[in-house]
Amino acid sequence: MNRRMVFYLLGKILYIEAALMSLPLVCSAIYKESKSLFAFVITILLSLGLGLALTKFNRPKDKTIFAKEGFVIVALTWVVMSLIGALPFVISGEIPNFFNAFFETVSGFTTTGASILTDVEAISHGCLFWRSFTHWVGGMGILVLVMAIVPTESGRSMHIARAEMPGPIVGKLVPKLKTTAKILYLIYICFTVLEAILLLAGGMSLFDSILHSLGTAGTGGFGVKADSLASYTPYMQWVIAIFMLIFGVNFNIYYLILVRKIRTAFRSEELWVYIGIVLGAVAIITANVYNSFTNFADALRNATFQVASVITTTGYSTVNFSVWPNLSKGILFLLMFIGGCAGSTAGGLKVSRVVLLVKRVFSNLKRSLHPRSTELIKLEGKKVETDTANGVLVYFALYFICITAVFFLLLFEPFDMETNLTATVSCFNNIGPAYASAWDNYNIYSSFSKVVLSFAMLLGRLEIYPMILLFSPTSWLKRRKIKK
Amino acid sequence: MNRRMVFYLLGKILYIEAALMSLPLVCSAIYKESKSLFAFVITILLSLGLGLALTKFNRPKDKTIFAKEGFVIVALTWVVMSLIGALPFVISGEIPNFFNAFFETVSGFTTTGASILTDVEAISHGCLFWRSFTHWVGGMGILVLVMAIVPTESGRSMHIARAEMPGPIVGKLVPKLKTTAKILYLIYICFTVLEAILLLAGGMSLFDSILHSLGTAGTGGFGVKADSLASYTPYMQWVIAIFMLIFGVNFNIYYLILVRKIRTAFRSEELWVYIGIVLGAVAIITANVYNSFTNFADALRNATFQVASVITTTGYSTVNFSVWPNLSKGILFLLMFIGGCAGSTAGGLKVSRVVLLVKRVFSNLKRSLHPRSTELIKLEGKKVETDTANGVLVYFALYFICITAVFFLLLFEPFDMETNLTATVSCFNNIGPAYASAWDNYNIYSSFSKVVLSFAMLLGRLEIYPMILLFSPTSWLKRRKIKK
Repeated sequence: MNRRMVFYLLGKILYIEAALMSLPLVCSAIYKESKSLFAFVITILLSLGLGLALTKFNRPKDKTIFAKEGFVIVALTWVVMSLIGALPFVISGEIPNFFNAFFETVSGFTTTGASILTDVEAISHGCLFWRSFTHWVGGMGILVLVMAIVPTESGRSMHIARAEMPGPIVGKLVPKLKTTAKILYLIYICFTVLEAILLLAGGMSLFDSILHSLGTAGTGGFGVKADSLASYTPYMQWVIAIFMLIFGVNFNIYYLILVRKIRTAFRSEELWVYIGIVLGAVAIITANVYNSFTNFADALRNATFQVASVITTTGYSTVNFSVWPNLSKGILFLLMFIGGCAGSTAGGLKVSRVVLLVKRVFSNLKRSLHPRSTELIKLEGKKVETDTANGVLVYFALYFICITAVFFLLLFEPFDMETNLTATVSCFNNIGPAYASAWDNYNIYSSFSKVVLSFAMLLGRLEIYPMILLFSPTSWLKRRKIKK
Repeated sequence: MNRRMVFYLLGKILYIEAALMSLPLVCSAIYKESKSLFAFVITILLSLGLGLALTKFNRPKDKTIFAKEGFVIVALTWVVMSLIGALPFVISGEIPNFFNAFFETVSGFTTTGASILTDVEAISHGCLFWRSFTHWVGGMGILVLVMAIVPTESGRSMHIARAEMPGPIVGKLVPKLKTTAKILYLIYICFTVLEAILLLAGGMSLFDSILHSLGTAGTGGFGVKADSLASYTPYMQWVIAIFMLIFGVNFNIYYLILVRKIRTAFRSEELWVYIGIVLGAVAIITANVYNSFTNFADALRNATFQVASVITTTGYSTVNFSVWPNLSKGILFLLMFIGGCAGSTAGGLKVSRVVLLVKRVFSNLKRSLHPRSTELIKLEGKKVETDTANGVLVYFALYFICITAVFFLLLFEPFDMETNLTATVSCFNNIGPAYASAWDNYNIYSSFSKVVLSFAMLLGRLEIYPMILLFSPTSWLKRRKIKK
């Protein structure tokens, strides 16, 4: 492996992290929070120093990178960003335990939104801003951001993009990857600002509006109140519900609309399946919880909010749906696995992957009846390569193997199956809340389990491969000479 | 499809069912139970009459069958055998509700052992015998039995064998399928008799010995007491534990030992993985439950018994392991998925399928690092065809899709997630007991859910394909002329 190049890039990324932290620093300054201000200054200096050292001592002669380097850079970036990103919480003394701070930061970057905080309302504005900002950065992808803003140094950055961007098929909007990254971030920023304005217009404070927009955009779920979104007005809840759904859609669709290919945009198979699942789930759950609310509008709003929150893997809530009837809880549990569309900021298996999986399975069923027939699987009107379709099957198997492993490691905890299983599934799919004992707080878990769940979140966000390959010794072998 | 041939064979199978029922009939006669005696006579006559009608009106001109007919015959056989097999319980009045009787019979034939009986000790000897006997017949396979005893009429019976026999690769012990079926049943009978003798020698009554042997052999789990095996002596519990493990091994191994290829037998990869999983699980659970028992021997015996019972998907129990600590319960829950070896009477995914799945996934991980490397997956020292390896992936996906569907249909019940999820997994993998409210009794469920769970048991036992294809309209289309 081209280790020099990996560490060199990592150094550059630490510069970016320092730059990103200047925003919460400003926030701390505005609110005159000296402790968190100090914490951000220290962390920024540390990040810059470490970045300088890494880039200085690892200036690469050979700048080429292959698939292997792509995976390792992505995984290492996410782990290191989280390690550094946890420091402000520890230094400011707001989350003194490092394991807790690490869990919270991983939860932020991976857009999970699972929290160990017992009193979120006691946290400083600077730290709250950083927490929600990690959602925003992690949502679209740290390395996608790097590509959008840093002058391209390597012609092979597709390997990095492929490793960080979710979904079964990674495409480019335009031939140049750098332009693609810029367009994606532009759409992302516009929607985030729009949401903040709409929330502000509804009477939410500026600080809360910005933080909820950042949390919604990254499909994260960190809020500023102990009861998440329950104490806000129905208007604000509707705005957030709709924006959660917007951020769960493949950003390609918005690009197509932007370039006026509206008909193509609305022919998207994934989009319609996504809409279908949302409408179906909302209908059943509204009917199921109707009795617990005073009127139909309330039932519909709460059902829609929770469905949007879970399928987009955001994790905000307006009610404790962990005490809802079985049918509703069960449907929400199933939605946890599906997740949003590929190419969105949402986690989970992704709608298009589920669609491909079902198609692949049915084509096999057909073939068992007519052994001579040839399989042709189509998605979005295009033929899907056999390797891609089989890749989805492998991913699905790997996904369950990983979930099983995480669930197994949580068995040493004294909690019931519902708590442990939903915590595993919720963290792995980057949602946040789980059922029963882990409903709104993961502080019940031991440090060991917090580390396990942190890795589960990273596994889920990066779609498994990068994290496994980071820890595979063969990834770190020196590159052999490549024969043409 | 060759419908005539399908119905003709079904008619023949009803003769077999009538013949099988003569055994419980004799049992009823010995114990002078007039009601159940009457019920068996009526059912036998009905079965014979229906069989006669089916064979008479469907005498086929063309006796060839293909994959499609194979699947449909197998699925139809299991459904019809269960419908007819339920009648003695209804007619004798011992299980008056037909849905309950159907559930109990499906649970018998599929070797699940899940029961709706609230007082098993009140059931007549004849019906108890029939219940356990269905385990024995279903364990090795109804159609395998047909092949072993009925003169072969079709050269294509491999299609039937493939549809009924579990595991990723269906092999023949000897070139002739009929001889293979005979050998399998011979080994099966010898072990069953041996177990009964050992139980008898330990002081168990003849009736109980026979019934427990039948239940163990089929890895079923129906017992004769309300507390399953708890009130029997440690010796008897050890005998049953060991025999459960014996019946969870691929019968090829015993055949190899029989023909003195002992070295080949003990080189089996699946066997060693199976033994490894059992030993590992026993060790952890013994340590975990050690405190609840008075001495090490008790802890070891109970841990071994429960592990053997769950991994072989039998379902007997010596304690209520649904109240064991989380770690033990979690491990047993994971074992439910794995199941026994392929080519055994056990259910679940099968050890060799899990091994293949893991190998296939890892070969893909390797390929993502070295895209030019070629994949070569080996099992038992032999190269596995790409189609077989991908088939395992498809099966795994289909397996989770089906489990999800069953779990979803149970959501209308008022029970918690642990109950519904373990009931689904337990029935699908043909185990029997579930956790929480469904621990020892499925009578808590509605008739609708009982039908759903019955189909889950059939889906699991027949490894999905036959049941789905039975209900697929395209399976029933008339055969088109086949061009060479």
